[in-house]
Amino acid sequence: MKVKVAVNGYGTIGKRVADALRKQRDMEVVGVTKTKPDFEAKMAIRKGFRLFCAIPENLKLFESAGVEIEGTVHDLIEDVDIVIDCSPGKVGVQNKPMYEKAGVKAIFQGGEKRDVAELSFNALANYEEAIGKRFVRVVSCNTTGLVRVLYLLDKNFGVEKVRAVMIRRVVDPKEDKKGLVNGISPDPIKLPSHHGPDVQTVLPHIDITTVAFKVPTTLMHIHSLNVRLGEKVSEDSILDVFEREPRILLISGEDGFTSTTKIIEFAREVRDRYDLFENVVWRDSIAVVDGELYFTQAIHQEAIVIPENVDAVRAMFEMAEKDESISMTNESLDIGKLSF
Amino acid sequence: MKVKVAVNGYGTIGKRVADALRKQRDMEVVGVTKTKPDFEAKMAIRKGFRLFCAIPENLKLFESAGVEIEGTVHDLIEDVDIVIDCSPGKVGVQNKPMYEKAGVKAIFQGGEKRDVAELSFNALANYEEAIGKRFVRVVSCNTTGLVRVLYLLDKNFGVEKVRAVMIRRVVDPKEDKKGLVNGISPDPIKLPSHHGPDVQTVLPHIDITTVAFKVPTTLMHIHSLNVRLGEKVSEDSILDVFEREPRILLISGEDGFTSTTKIIEFAREVRDRYDLFENVVWRDSIAVVDGELYFTQAIHQEAIVIPENVDAVRAMFEMAEKDESISMTNESLDIGKLSF
Repeated sequence: MKVKVAVNGYGTIGKRVADALRKQRDMEVVGVTKTKPDFEAKMAIRKGFRLFCAIPENLKLFESAGVEIEGTVHDLIEDVDIVIDCSPGKVGVQNKPMYEKAGVKAIFQGGEKRDVAELSFNALANYEEAIGKRFVRVVSCNTTGLVRVLYLLDKNFGVEKVRAVMIRRVVDPKEDKKGLVNGISPDPIKLPSHHGPDVQTVLPHIDITTVAFKVPTTLMHIHSLNVRLGEKVSEDSILDVFEREPRILLISGEDGFTSTTKIIEFAREVRDRYDLFENVVWRDSIAVVDGELYFTQAIHQEAIVIPENVDAVRAMFEMAEKDESISMTNESLDIGKLSF
Repeated sequence: MKVKVAVNGYGTIGKRVADALRKQRDMEVVGVTKTKPDFEAKMAIRKGFRLFCAIPENLKLFESAGVEIEGTVHDLIEDVDIVIDCSPGKVGVQNKPMYEKAGVKAIFQGGEKRDVAELSFNALANYEEAIGKRFVRVVSCNTTGLVRVLYLLDKNFGVEKVRAVMIRRVVDPKEDKKGLVNGISPDPIKLPSHHGPDVQTVLPHIDITTVAFKVPTTLMHIHSLNVRLGEKVSEDSILDVFEREPRILLISGEDGFTSTTKIIEFAREVRDRYDLFENVVWRDSIAVVDGELYFTQAIHQEAIVIPENVDAVRAMFEMAEKDESISMTNESLDIGKLSF
């Protein structure tokens, strides 16, 4: 018996979620939606996904473009158990009444406010809390990247205080209508950035202050972390914890990984769409100075939340225990197989 | 009986050439070289290529990094029929005496001057001239992009005069040591750019003037072409010629292909490393104004010369006729299968 899933919004996140769901033996993608008949809509059909129109008024656009459409989002959700809403930020909350009316569960993305759902989710940190829930929000890429490492550090050593600086890619690679091509933009100017409070939606007890800046790049975010731990640690003990977690990929400057450009160059060799579902942590950045831990990680904003969406489905339908779900998801997406 | 090939320089072009050669049933990659033991060197080994050191003095670097090396470039070339030199520009010519001494054939890339080889090569335009040659130079990415379309236009309609403006990606995606992040650089200031004369190394009778500019992007080049043809043409007749050539991929603005970012977003779905071996021509850019043809094409600088290298090998060893070789190469690299 497979859970029937709809992906509402076949864009940057939606197309990756759809592909990942298809690789799960306990899930079925009933259909995906697009607002307009562009090349991404055509690619969805070529990949064998049933395509539905996310905005009923736009049905005619698809017809006049000759793109085969099977109905509207309303037709699609009648036939599913859960919708993974991958709309742009703030659009998910507008869709929620539709999901409530149809009596389906829904997963929202981190672009929505926390109160769109009963729970903000990260598989490592709070899988069990999502058991049986109806509305869950998978936290954003940066928050997912922070939560994974902070959960591990807290579990193993206790976390007393976190200071994190996020250096953010300004837009996704496909974007050509907005951006920042020459400058560094404090985002926001007045701290904290939303990431700290967002981490606390998953790990409420973590004391964290975050600052963020947008820079003119599209590839990945970078996080510079400073963490005061509850016990004295060595660099090796940190490395050991990170090495045991498949959702963390350790790399080294010695191998020529001098920037995010080199990480993506590597990813182009080994992953479809160069997707990196893992936190990418530089081994050589891990330093303990005056008893405090410092390290640097890179986060692939297009891909990192994909395994979390898959695990959220399993938790919400009580289909598997935490470790079982995470293993299944990792196995299906090749997570934990890369190494350097 | 397979031709035994060495790839000297497993970098941006070399790794793609090595993968492409491996897909040919009449060729065998005996080994590849790297100058240093970085992640690309390790990837070569993981992919099953035998790795050799391009600079004998650097052997120790590989040993101390624990990267398994099978010898130097000198050991490698003793065991092959031909070397595809994928060194950085101007390094190929320094390697030539080594190839001469070893008695092997060699293919150089477009970063070398024309006189490094007996012939500047493009498969569509002058395959037959490479039959039996010892040293051949595959012209650069921009020149390959120009030669393919100009050859077709000249063959079908006669070309009287070409004016081309190249808007060039400044560096390749993996680059993090050089670039241009805020500016537009005439390259060179005094016209013509080298591309026009370089086109004439393959198509000597074509009257062409080129101008080039570098802009802060890494994805693809753009060419804006203006061509006076020998006969009156319609836009449809141009489209018809381009549609029949597998090494040209036609796209449309209507499908959302509003920039090179969207072309690459599409390529990430369908090709390893998002490689586009085809000239990418916008259908809607094809215009005949006052009897002259205008159109715009995008050129993926990392990938477009790869099929040309494969065809050059077949020509130099008289392994196949032009059409046969091009078909084999296209089939193996999935060229001509994409459409929009």
